[in-house]
Amino acid sequence: MASSSYSNSPCAACKFLRRKCMPDCIFAPYFPPEEPQKFANVHKIFGASNVSKLLHEVQPHQREDAVNSLAYEAEARIKDPVYGCVGAISVLQRQVIRLQKELDATNADLIRYSCNEIPNTHHGGAASSLGNSHAFYYPSTNWNNDHCGNRYPSGDI
Amino acid sequence: MASSSYSNSPCAACKFLRRKCMPDCIFAPYFPPEEPQKFANVHKIFGASNVSKLLHEVQPHQREDAVNSLAYEAEARIKDPVYGCVGAISVLQRQVIRLQKELDATNADLIRYSCNEIPNTHHGGAASSLGNSHAFYYPSTNWNNDHCGNRYPSGDI
Repeated sequence: MASSSYSNSPCAACKFLRRKCMPDCIFAPYFPPEEPQKFANVHKIFGASNVSKLLHEVQPHQREDAVNSLAYEAEARIKDPVYGCVGAISVLQRQVIRLQKELDATNADLIRYSCNEIPNTHHGGAASSLGNSHAFYYPSTNWNNDHCGNRYPSGDI
Repeated sequence: MASSSYSNSPCAACKFLRRKCMPDCIFAPYFPPEEPQKFANVHKIFGASNVSKLLHEVQPHQREDAVNSLAYEAEARIKDPVYGCVGAISVLQRQVIRLQKELDATNADLIRYSCNEIPNTHHGGAASSLGNSHAFYYPSTNWNNDHCGNRYPSGDI
C-alpha cells in the first residue's frame, strides 16, 4: 500500500536526492523513508526524472502499481544487467512451451486410453508392461467400427 | 546482430543526441541509423546516460543482448506505462499455473485409467456412458491387490 508517512521525515526519494520533501511530492506516497533501496534501485536504472515523468503520465490510482513494477524491473536489472526481467520472461515462455507439450502428450495418451490403444492395468506396473494380455471381454453381440478404428457392439450396452 | 554501419552516418543514438558519432561510440554497434525508434525508446525510459553506464558494465560480447533486452523493456513500458513487461510476466505466471493444474488433472485421469477407475471405451461415447458393462477379462488365476486397491492376477501376465 502507498505510504503516507512523509509528514515527519523526507521520503526515500527526496532523502536520496538531498532535496526538501514537499507535501505534494510525487514520490513520497510510494517511496517511504523506511525503504531507501527501492528508490535507489529505480534511480540507478531509470533515473529520478524518468520515474517522475512516468508517474505524472499515469492516473493517481495506477501510480502504486507503476512504482512497484518499476521497482521489480530495476531490481531484476541490477541482479542481471544483461537480461534484467526479460530473462524471467524467457524462462517462463520456455516453461509454458514445455508444459503445453507435456499436456498435449498426456491428452493424447488419454485419448489412446479411451480408444483402447493402451490397455488399462490392474496393478502398479506401467500400462505398456502388460502388453496385450488384458483384453476387454464383451458378451457375444454384433459389432460396428468407432472413430478410433475399433469395433464395438452395436447393441444397447 | 550488431550493426557496423556507423562509418557513413552517425548511429541512431548520436543522431538523436545531436552529437558527433566517434569510431569508439559505445552505442553505434547496437543502434544503427536505420532503427531510430530503438534508441528513442530506451532513451525515453532509461535515459542515454544509464544505458551507456550499463553497456560499460557488461562484457562486450553481452552488449547486444543487453541492448535488445533494454529495447524490449522500453517498448513494453511505452505500450503499458503502468506494468511494462512486468505485465507479460504476470500473464505468463498465470499461464504456467493454469497449465500445471491442467497437467496434474490429466495425469490424475491417466492414473485412474491405469487403475481401471475409468473404464476404456470402444466407441465414440464418453467412457462413463459404458458404466460397468465392460469388464476386464482375465484367465482364471490367483489374485492380489495393487496400490489402486484393485485385484490383479498374481501370475506372470
